[in-house]
Amino acid sequence: MFPKNAWYVAAISREIKDRGVLSRTICELPLALYRAQDGTVGALLDRCPHRLFPLSKGEVTQDGLRCGYHGLAFAADGRCTHIPSQDEIPPNARVAAYPVRESHGLIWLWPGDPALAQNTPLPAFETGPGYLSGLDFSCLDESDKWGVAGPHLIEVDANYMLAVDNLLDLTHVAFIHAKTFDNSAILGSERITKTVGENQLIDFFRFKNPMSAPLRAAYMLDQDIPLYDSFLETYWHAPGTMILVHGATPERADREESGTIVMGINAITPATRTSCHYFWSQAVYRNLRGGAVRDAWEIATRNAFAEDEHALRTQQHNLERFGMRELSDGVSLMLKSDKAITLARRTIARLVKDETRGSRLNSSRDNNEGNCNDVA
Amino acid sequence: MFPKNAWYVAAISREIKDRGVLSRTICELPLALYRAQDGTVGALLDRCPHRLFPLSKGEVTQDGLRCGYHGLAFAADGRCTHIPSQDEIPPNARVAAYPVRESHGLIWLWPGDPALAQNTPLPAFETGPGYLSGLDFSCLDESDKWGVAGPHLIEVDANYMLAVDNLLDLTHVAFIHAKTFDNSAILGSERITKTVGENQLIDFFRFKNPMSAPLRAAYMLDQDIPLYDSFLETYWHAPGTMILVHGATPERADREESGTIVMGINAITPATRTSCHYFWSQAVYRNLRGGAVRDAWEIATRNAFAEDEHALRTQQHNLERFGMRELSDGVSLMLKSDKAITLARRTIARLVKDETRGSRLNSSRDNNEGNCNDVA
Amino acid sequence: MFPKNAWYVAAISREIKDRGVLSRTICELPLALYRAQDGTVGALLDRCPHRLFPLSKGEVTQDGLRCGYHGLAFAADGRCTHIPSQDEIPPNARVAAYPVRESHGLIWLWPGDPALAQNTPLPAFETGPGYLSGLDFSCLDESDKWGVAGPHLIEVDANYMLAVDNLLDLTHVAFIHAKTFDNSAILGSERITKTVGENQLIDFFRFKNPMSAPLRAAYMLDQDIPLYDSFLETYWHAPGTMILVHGATPERADREESGTIVMGINAITPATRTSCHYFWSQAVYRNLRGGAVRDAWEIATRNAFAEDEHALRTQQHNLERFGMRELSDGVSLMLKSDKAITLARRTIARLVKDETRGSRLNSSRDNNEGNCNDVA
Repeated sequence: MFPKNAWYVAAISREIKDRGVLSRTICELPLALYRAQDGTVGALLDRCPHRLFPLSKGEVTQDGLRCGYHGLAFAADGRCTHIPSQDEIPPNARVAAYPVRESHGLIWLWPGDPALAQNTPLPAFETGPGYLSGLDFSCLDESDKWGVAGPHLIEVDANYMLAVDNLLDLTHVAFIHAKTFDNSAILGSERITKTVGENQLIDFFRFKNPMSAPLRAAYMLDQDIPLYDSFLETYWHAPGTMILVHGATPERADREESGTIVMGINAITPATRTSCHYFWSQAVYRNLRGGAVRDAWEIATRNAFAEDEHALRTQQHNLERFGMRELSDGVSLMLKSDKAITLARRTIARLVKDETRGSRLNSSRDNNEGNCNDVA
Repeated sequence: MFPKNAWYVAAISREIKDRGVLSRTICELPLALYRAQDGTVGALLDRCPHRLFPLSKGEVTQDGLRCGYHGLAFAADGRCTHIPSQDEIPPNARVAAYPVRESHGLIWLWPGDPALAQNTPLPAFETGPGYLSGLDFSCLDESDKWGVAGPHLIEVDANYMLAVDNLLDLTHVAFIHAKTFDNSAILGSERITKTVGENQLIDFFRFKNPMSAPLRAAYMLDQDIPLYDSFLETYWHAPGTMILVHGATPERADREESGTIVMGINAITPATRTSCHYFWSQAVYRNLRGGAVRDAWEIATRNAFAEDEHALRTQQHNLERFGMRELSDGVSLMLKSDKAITLARRTIARLVKDETRGSRLNSSRDNNEGNCNDVA
Repeated sequence: MFPKNAWYVAAISREIKDRGVLSRTICELPLALYRAQDGTVGALLDRCPHRLFPLSKGEVTQDGLRCGYHGLAFAADGRCTHIPSQDEIPPNARVAAYPVRESHGLIWLWPGDPALAQNTPLPAFETGPGYLSGLDFSCLDESDKWGVAGPHLIEVDANYMLAVDNLLDLTHVAFIHAKTFDNSAILGSERITKTVGENQLIDFFRFKNPMSAPLRAAYMLDQDIPLYDSFLETYWHAPGTMILVHGATPERADREESGTIVMGINAITPATRTSCHYFWSQAVYRNLRGGAVRDAWEIATRNAFAEDEHALRTQQHNLERFGMRELSDGVSLMLKSDKAITLARRTIARLVKDETRGSRLNSSRDNNEGNCNDVA
C-alpha cells in the first residue's frame, strides 16, 4: 500500500552516467531510467510497445532510448521517434513516461498522475531545528558546513513500510544494534511524537546518556565528560522521506555551539510489495575534525544498516511464512512505543484512500499509456 | 492431510542445547523450540505478536524467550513476561504455545488442542514381539540390552504420507535398494497385514532367504549357513510412528536365542504439505559383536535412507509436475501389495475427519492464540 | 497456445541411445522417451500409474520400460506388461502413450489424439526452391550434396511463439545480431510475405548487400566482388517447423551454379507455456570448400542463436514481470514488418480453435489414459 502521487527517490545521480540506462522497479512499475544526450534523465515504462522487450536493454541515441530488439526509439515523453523498418510512426506507438526531477545528487520520480506532479514540489519539511536553518537536502552537497557520507543505496527485501516503521520506533536500537551502538539508555528516554501538518510527523528522543564506547568513538566525544545530553530527532515526510538529526552535547551545553550534530537523510522507496530501495546519507554539521566524524559515521551507519537490512528481511520472510505480504493493522500488537508508527500508517492510509477516490473521478492518465494500459 | 491432535517427534534432544533455540516447522506451524533456564523445552508459534518477528531469532533469558527486535519476552505458556519500553503488559500480549514432552532423547510436540494433550500418552504399541517384552522407546537408551545407532534426522522434501507409504510397502526394497540390500527374495514373501485396535497396524514379511552379500555383511551372519529365516515386521502407530523389527535366524532356529534382531525406530513428522522430518534409529538387540552390528546397520541404513530420500523427493516432485501436492486416493492404481497403505490411509482419513467434526463443536483453542489467531 | 494434433520434434535420435531413457516435457506433457530393445522409440506419460513415480527414472527391460520404484513394466502402447508383486495385471494398469516417428536423425512426437496421427505425414513443404528439388529433411543426412552441422538443441526459457516470431521478423538481425552479422542491409530489403495452403507461409528477403566482414567470412565469399545478391527465404510450417534458405551470389549470377546456399532447419517445440526446445541444423549445399563453410556456419549460428536465446529469455522474463505468460494479440503494437507474425499467429489460432471444437465432438482419447486422465 503506497501513494502513487508522490515524489520518490528512484536513483542516485551517479548511478546513471552519460547515456547510461538503468533498470529499476519503483512502486511496482518496472522502469527504464536513462540519461539522454542532453544530460536530462528520462523514465519510461520498461517495455517497448512493439514486442514488449525491456527498453532498459537498449541504447541511448540521438532519437532517445532505442530498443535493442527491432530498433524503435522513444523520447522522454514516451513518443516513438524512429522505426527502422518503416517511415510512418503510428499514433499509438507510445510508451508510458513518468515525471523525473534531479536535485542535490538524487533522482526523484513521480509514479502517479503526471499532471499532478507539475505543481508538487519535492518533499520539504514544515519544521526543523532552528540552529540548522531548517531541514533541506542541500546538506547533501559537501561544503564547509556539511561533511557528507553517501548517498548510498541498500536493496531491502521487505515491504517499504517495515523500513519506515523500523525508523519510527528507535527503541529497536537497544536490541538490533546492541553490539553496534550499545545504547540501551534510549529505553528510558523522554519521547515526543506528534503529527505536523497534513503528511508529516516528528518523533523526538531526548535522554541523558553516559555514551557507550562505540558511540563515543563514532561521535568522537571527549572521554572525560561522564554524561551527555543525547538526542535522536526523526522528521518524517510521507511516504518515505525521513531525516534523523542525532548527536550529543555535554550536559546542558548549547547544541549548535558545542554539540556533535549529524543529519541522517533517508529515502525509502517501494520497489515491489515485498521489497524497497533504501537510500541513505549522513551529513556531519561543520564536518567536525576534518572529516573524521563523517568517516566514522559512514562506517557505523553501514554496519547498523546491515543489521537493519537483515532484521527487515527476516521480518518480511516471517510475514510470508504466515501467508502475509504486508504487516496490516489489526494483526500486530500495538504498544505505547508504536505511536509514531500508528500515526504514519494512518497518514499513508488516508493518502491512498484520497488517491483511490481521486482516480475514480479522473482518468486523464490513461491516455498517456498508448496501447499498453490494459496490461500495466 | 494430517491429524493435529497427536504427538509428533519434533526434534532430537541434543538438537536443543542449554538455552538453545531452534526454528522448526511442524504440521505447517512455524515454531520456536527452546530450552528454558530450568532445562525444560518450550514451543511457541514463531512470531512475536508485536511486529511478527520470528522468536526463533531471539535469546533465552530468565524471562523466557526474548524477541530480538524490541525485547518482548514470553513464557512457555505463551504469556508475555516483559516489555522493555513499558511497565504494563496488555492482556492480549500472548503467543500461541504448544504442549511438549521429552522422553528417551526425543522431543515430542502436540500441534493440536492443548487440552486434549494432557490425557494422551506418547505413542505406545498394543502388540509387539514377546521375546523383546513388547515395543517401546526405551531401546533408544544404549544399554547391555541394546546397541543404538541414532537418533538421526533426515529432512525429506516429500509429503509425510509418501514416507509412511514407502515403509508400508517394503517390496520397494527389491528396486530402490537393489544395490544396498540386493534382496529380491522379499518379492516371494509370505505377508500378513492387519489393523490393530483403533489406529495401529502390523505388516509382517517372513521368507526363506539365502541372504545377499550386503545383508550377510550388515547382520554379520555365518557364511556357512545356506538359508535363513528372514523377517521384516512393521508396527505402525498413526500418524507417523513406525517400528520395524528385522533380522534373520538360521532355518527354524529360535529367534531370541540365535537370531540377529534389529529394531528400526522411525518417526515421520509433517513439516509442510510437501516436506517432512524423518527421525530414525536402529537398535541392535544384545548389541551383538561388541557394537559391530550396530555400526554396520548405521552405515547400511544411512545408505538405504539416502536412496529413499531421493526416491521420495523424486516422487513428490513428479506429483507437483502433474499439479498435485499430495497423492490422493483414487488417483493411483492400487495393487495387492498396497493393502497396508490403504489401511493406514483409511485410519488417517478417519482421524482427520473426527478431528474436523470435533473442532466444530469445540473452539476452546482459539482463546490461546492472543490476537494472532486470525492469521495463523 | 499450441495445437496438440501436430508432429513436433521431441528429440535428436542420438539423444536416446540403445535402451536409453530421456525425460522431456513436450507441449506441457512430461514424457518418458525411451528406446526399446528392438530399437524403436516409445513415449509414455512420465508417471507410473501405481505410485506416480517418474517412469523416466526407470530401466528398459524385455518387458518394456520398468518403473524404478516397485518394478511395474509398460509397453510402448501404455499397457502394463509385468507386476513383480502379483500375477494378475488389472485392466486399468495403463499409462498414456504417444505416437512417435523417427526420421533423418530426428524423433517426432504427436501430443494429441493418436488416432489422428496415423494418417498425418511428417511436415512437408508445399513449395520450395526448384534448384534444390524442393525442401525436405533428407538434407540432414550428410552426403556429397549436403554438409551438415547439427542437429543441435537449445533449451529456451520463452514461449515457443516468441521463438517463431523471432524468425518471422528477420529485421531483428540488424540489432540483436549487430555484432555477429553486421547486416543492416536487410532493413532496406525487398520483402515478400504470403501464406501457402492451409498452414504454411513464406517470408522472403532479397537485397543487394556489400556483405559485412563476418558474413564474407562465414559464407567464404570472394573478397574482390563489391556487391552480392543476398537472400534470406523463410519457409514456415505450422506450428514450429521452419526452413531458412540463405546465402549470396555475385550480382545477377545464377544461384545454383555460383551461389553459396545454406539451409537452416529449425524445429521449435513447446515445452511449457514459458519454455521451448529449439532444434537447429545448418546444411550447406554441395558442402562447399570441403566442409569449411559448414564449420564456419556451425560457429556463426551457435553465436547468433546464443544471442537469440538471451533475447527471447529477456523478452519472456519481461512479459512475466508485467503479469503475462504469452504475448497475446492486442497487447503489442503491430508494424508492417510484423505481417508474417500476424499471418502465422492467425494460422495457429485457427488450428487451436478447430482442435478445441473437434475435441468436444470426439472424446475417444480419454479411454487411452487409464485411471490417470482426471489429473492429466
